[in-house]
Amino acid sequence: MSHTVEILSVGTELLLGNIVNSDAQDLSRELSALGLNVLYHSVVGDNPGRLRAAVELARSRADVLITTGGLGPTCDDLTKQTLAECFGRQLIYHPECAEGIRCFFHRMGKEMTENNLQQAYLPEGCDILDNAWGTAPGCAFEEGGTYVVMLPGPPRECLPMFRERAVPWLSRLSEGVIRSRTLRVFGAGESAVEALLRDRMNQLTNPTLAPYAKEGEVELRITAKADTAEAADALIAPVEADVRAVLGDLVYGADVSGLPQVVLEGARARGLTLGTAESCTGGLVAKRLTDVPGAASAFLGGVVSYHCEVKAGVLGVSQALLEERGAVCAQVAEQMAQGARRVLGCDLAMSVTGVAGPDPDERGNPVGLVYVALAAPDGCWVKELNLASPGARRDRIRILAANHVLDMARRWLAGK
Amino acid sequence: MSHTVEILSVGTELLLGNIVNSDAQDLSRELSALGLNVLYHSVVGDNPGRLRAAVELARSRADVLITTGGLGPTCDDLTKQTLAECFGRQLIYHPECAEGIRCFFHRMGKEMTENNLQQAYLPEGCDILDNAWGTAPGCAFEEGGTYVVMLPGPPRECLPMFRERAVPWLSRLSEGVIRSRTLRVFGAGESAVEALLRDRMNQLTNPTLAPYAKEGEVELRITAKADTAEAADALIAPVEADVRAVLGDLVYGADVSGLPQVVLEGARARGLTLGTAESCTGGLVAKRLTDVPGAASAFLGGVVSYHCEVKAGVLGVSQALLEERGAVCAQVAEQMAQGARRVLGCDLAMSVTGVAGPDPDERGNPVGLVYVALAAPDGCWVKELNLASPGARRDRIRILAANHVLDMARRWLAGK
Repeated sequence: MSHTVEILSVGTELLLGNIVNSDAQDLSRELSALGLNVLYHSVVGDNPGRLRAAVELARSRADVLITTGGLGPTCDDLTKQTLAECFGRQLIYHPECAEGIRCFFHRMGKEMTENNLQQAYLPEGCDILDNAWGTAPGCAFEEGGTYVVMLPGPPRECLPMFRERAVPWLSRLSEGVIRSRTLRVFGAGESAVEALLRDRMNQLTNPTLAPYAKEGEVELRITAKADTAEAADALIAPVEADVRAVLGDLVYGADVSGLPQVVLEGARARGLTLGTAESCTGGLVAKRLTDVPGAASAFLGGVVSYHCEVKAGVLGVSQALLEERGAVCAQVAEQMAQGARRVLGCDLAMSVTGVAGPDPDERGNPVGLVYVALAAPDGCWVKELNLASPGARRDRIRILAANHVLDMARRWLAGK
Repeated sequence: MSHTVEILSVGTELLLGNIVNSDAQDLSRELSALGLNVLYHSVVGDNPGRLRAAVELARSRADVLITTGGLGPTCDDLTKQTLAECFGRQLIYHPECAEGIRCFFHRMGKEMTENNLQQAYLPEGCDILDNAWGTAPGCAFEEGGTYVVMLPGPPRECLPMFRERAVPWLSRLSEGVIRSRTLRVFGAGESAVEALLRDRMNQLTNPTLAPYAKEGEVELRITAKADTAEAADALIAPVEADVRAVLGDLVYGADVSGLPQVVLEGARARGLTLGTAESCTGGLVAKRLTDVPGAASAFLGGVVSYHCEVKAGVLGVSQALLEERGAVCAQVAEQMAQGARRVLGCDLAMSVTGVAGPDPDERGNPVGLVYVALAAPDGCWVKELNLASPGARRDRIRILAANHVLDMARRWLAGK
């Protein structure tokens, strides 16, 4: 029997548009990978009547109900109480949960206000989902054929709670093993990638092959279902080989977190160090490299030369060049990268200078005109990019620019 | 009569978690600002039976139904057809829409495939919402007291279509005005803020006062409804004054995007320039400052001194100090800030050094130990932080550390 899931998110802040429902996305992706069919998302506010009606509806049309939000310590947090009522259970005080909450505050070195203990009340007879990422425990129970899981709302609690606590509880519902492998692609848009692979995507059923547009790149996910992990992996391998044969070096990695990880690993493997010199990206490239734990094994540092005085004074970009051509040109990108290499003492330096917008620069260079450069022991390369497009605003132009310069480093490190 | 809204999003990609439902957020924010109460979000896949049931449900519990998605040219795009059936209308071919679609492709310099003309079929008697941002036109009609608006799914089309096309159509429904003001708070958690304000939150009905936890900070939103914007603002003002009296300088701004904006505006107002020196945050502070359009009017640049050689070589931190004490101590933070001030030539420099994790540093300093410093014309201040908590992983420690150093600058600029 195939199980059907409804994700019910509770919170007026969602209905006011203050936050986006990223929990529903995160859980949907994870549930799909478990082989559970998510058929509905619904959102109601912090209103017991509407929440009750939504629970009854969900119960009538799905057999797994996962709620997010409304488990916190404030008077708006009504989820446990309302679901307990709907499923005919009492809320019971769990001293061990209270102790856990006290310990959490103690570990954080913070004062616990009394209202936090409200979080220790949970439906009678439920399985407690211990929250190591915040204060509100989750819970799970089965009642009359409906499997109910309640998770906290903050995304940085919801997703680990799902993975570490709910998945083991839900594993009773899943048959077989689902495995997936994600190839990451930079340098072609989603529709171009899809056009190249469309026939394969339509023909494949197990494994499946599906593209996902990410910020400035494309993910291709190959997902297989089998009795064992080994059998699933054996289904995936030939499809991966085939996709790599079609896309060539547009594929920059498999099951990696992104270009920064690949660049760091490439540098580490060759015993080389990295540095950055950034103007319009303003530290984003360095930030993304240092998002990766262990970045220090290859990344030495960077200079954010937002103003021309810093480009000249710290990186040694020619003052005359800056005066004559302005900051947005190929030569400045080149001198920034070479300057970073010298000043930081790194083997490989990436630089970015351009116009992120919202307005053209004072010389009339258009939004989206960006130069990226790579200074390496064997030379320096510059690339001119035009990242403008109708939907491309400041943040997207910065992300794309960062990806392009990281991709230059990736290709150099791969010997391309 | 107050109108109630349901946003019904159609698309299997939402249920698979491939994309987040940003349309629901965007529209909710806009609808709330129009004084319309969004009571439900729901999502169904590209399945006519479930879509039909969702439409009937929405019709029974809301009087404005806004759909997103499923208007495109492929066989999965079922929204118009299904809603036309639910509301007893025929789909009619609109030659002027077909012409618009042809023109759109022509402007983009692309070939139009014939299936695109399916988008020119719209329900009989509807008002056409012309799509200047894509190919699929939207539509709107009223039937039996239900106001129906259908919008395309891609966020770059959905939001401008709503603002430019749906809002004029919906203006007939809006009574009164809803205004809100968001106070931003740094330095106390959500439950601590709520404990201080609980009685007020419970007593207030118009305006309402509600807290939202953000990354490392808290938002307090005051929302009022009145006949005019002026009357709503007059309801908000005394509540804002009261909250400020309770929270004091924990409130760092109202209707601002975050600490970076406040710091940039504070510096600009005093004619001062800013710079950064970052170790464990690795460029995050500079990146967040330069997220703000126009950052260049105060922010000169920064140094990401991830390795000790960069701290010593670029920022002039004492080599002896680094050897004796390591990179994570108050004196290094101080010398980094002073070095950045000197090297970048800025008036005010912020520095961060610490252990973001996942592991303690090589000297055994624990994850979460961070020093932030501010070098100003009148002195240099350092603060020791312990940002460890069970849920605080690398990314959160970095965000909190960045907030703390930005808050130091904010307070100095405000003369505190």
